[in-house]
Amino acid sequence: MANVNIKPLADRVLVEPAAAEEKTAFGIIIPDTAKEKPQRGQIVAVGNGKKDEPLTVKVGDNVLYGKYSGTEITVEGKEYLIMRESDIFAVL
Amino acid sequence: MANVNIKPLADRVLVEPAAAEEKTAFGIIIPDTAKEKPQRGQIVAVGNGKKDEPLTVKVGDNVLYGKYSGTEITVEGKEYLIMRESDIFAVL
Amino acid sequence: MANVNIKPLADRVLVEPAAAEEKTAFGIIIPDTAKEKPQRGQIVAVGNGKKDEPLTVKVGDNVLYGKYSGTEITVEGKEYLIMRESDIFAVL
Amino acid sequence: MANVNIKPLADRVLVEPAAAEEKTAFGIIIPDTAKEKPQRGQIVAVGNGKKDEPLTVKVGDNVLYGKYSGTEITVEGKEYLIMRESDIFAVL
Amino acid sequence: MANVNIKPLADRVLVEPAAAEEKTAFGIIIPDTAKEKPQRGQIVAVGNGKKDEPLTVKVGDNVLYGKYSGTEITVEGKEYLIMRESDIFAVL
Amino acid sequence: MANVNIKPLADRVLVEPAAAEEKTAFGIIIPDTAKEKPQRGQIVAVGNGKKDEPLTVKVGDNVLYGKYSGTEITVEGKEYLIMRESDIFAVL
Amino acid sequence: MANVNIKPLADRVLVEPAAAEEKTAFGIIIPDTAKEKPQRGQIVAVGNGKKDEPLTVKVGDNVLYGKYSGTEITVEGKEYLIMRESDIFAVL
Repeated sequence: MANVNIKPLADRVLVEPAAAEEKTAFGIIIPDTAKEKPQRGQIVAVGNGKKDEPLTVKVGDNVLYGKYSGTEITVEGKEYLIMRESDIFAVL
Repeated sequence: MANVNIKPLADRVLVEPAAAEEKTAFGIIIPDTAKEKPQRGQIVAVGNGKKDEPLTVKVGDNVLYGKYSGTEITVEGKEYLIMRESDIFAVL
Repeated sequence: MANVNIKPLADRVLVEPAAAEEKTAFGIIIPDTAKEKPQRGQIVAVGNGKKDEPLTVKVGDNVLYGKYSGTEITVEGKEYLIMRESDIFAVL
Repeated sequence: MANVNIKPLADRVLVEPAAAEEKTAFGIIIPDTAKEKPQRGQIVAVGNGKKDEPLTVKVGDNVLYGKYSGTEITVEGKEYLIMRESDIFAVL
Repeated sequence: MANVNIKPLADRVLVEPAAAEEKTAFGIIIPDTAKEKPQRGQIVAVGNGKKDEPLTVKVGDNVLYGKYSGTEITVEGKEYLIMRESDIFAVL
Repeated sequence: MANVNIKPLADRVLVEPAAAEEKTAFGIIIPDTAKEKPQRGQIVAVGNGKKDEPLTVKVGDNVLYGKYSGTEITVEGKEYLIMRESDIFAVL
Repeated sequence: MANVNIKPLADRVLVEPAAAEEKTAFGIIIPDTAKEKPQRGQIVAVGNGKKDEPLTVKVGDNVLYGKYSGTEITVEGKEYLIMRESDIFAVL
């Protein structure tokens, strides 16, 4: 797990995505359901939570989150995602 | 009931769907009402609830939920749904 | 009144509709007002209410609700509606 | 004032409209302002209010409400409107 | 100031508009800003306020309000506006 | 700074704009970002704030606010803006 | 870091952007994800926070924020951004 010098604010966490997204090779796909496959990653930094609501996840947790959750951020050449804890579905 | 190593966050639960959705054989259907038939499944993991609001459902409960509720997630080759408890209509 | 083995969650209730909706025989109707005629039914199961807000309706109550309220659910071959208590307008 | 056997839920009231709405005889009218003329009616039944907020209006009150407020309901062949107290503008 | 027998509900007030709106004589005008000129009027009746929030304005106050605020109401042949106190910008 | 006889309600303030907006001389401009330049003005009257939230700005403060904030109001031939304190970005 | 005479209100902060945005040289780009790269800057002034919620960031902090966050403001010929603390993702 990478060591980063970033302190997310409030209820935000920094996630190192586990793997690149699979790309579709031959064109547009119309999904048969509206359900999205979640993504996996590891928490590398957490905020202090909001008033009266400390965070549940901690650094090192492997988590599942939605496909379009968070904002990409590049730190020392490496890509992370910064998102709110509420964007995280579960801890593996 | 499957045993899974996933801990849903907050008010989320992990549901093992009871049966595959029936597919329409011959094309597009325009439903005559806006009402959706709910789906059935079994709770396989639950979160700790939100502050001051513990969850009502527990592991093993057979539940009804909306057709488009939750996010699909594959664990050890098996498909589950992760959703908020508020997406669950009733316990059977 | 039917006896059903379903426990609605939180502020939801299970309603047995009193009668089928009348269908329009000859095509599309453009209503002259935006007002909807409510539907009638009987409560057959109730949830435990939300924190600090127990339900007002009880099993056996004949109620009025909006035309598009609730989700259809079939139990032992019979059709019910599951809806939030706030979808219910009045007790007859 | 009619006597009806309907108990509105929560903050809802049952209103007997004072008069039929005037219909436009010769076609579509483009109003010169966005302001709606309110409607008059009499309260014939009231709910118990919401938690900590008892209702202000009472049975027998003549009230003003918005043109599109409420849901039509027919009881013993007579038309009423069921609406939330917040849809009522004033007591005459 | 007129004397009217209307009791607005909750946080509503009854306003006697000070003057008719100026009409545009020669057609459609595209305003150069999105800002609206407010209207003037006098408070002729006030509600009791909402729980924990008594009204600030009182009968006799000359007030400014937005051009499209409130609902027109005719009492004994005279036009008034009924609006929420929050639609009032200032007391003159 | 002008002296005006207007008392804004609640969390509203009366602002004397510092300068006319610059007009675009030669036609439509498509901005390269969605960011708006704020406007400057001076507070000439303030409301009493909302329950539990007194205002922070005071009469005489020079403030920055959004380009489309507030409602124009003419007092004794002079143009002002009435807006909520939350429309004010900063005090200079 | 610049010294500025601006006091942001409530939960707003004044940010000195670290660098100009990179422009696309050869035309319109359709991004392959909806994710935005955040921007970097330094806090040069902070508000007093909202009732019960003091700010977390302080003057001098290097922060990350969304590409379209805040409002541009020019002070003594220099460009800043004024935004809410909630628009800031993390402190570096």
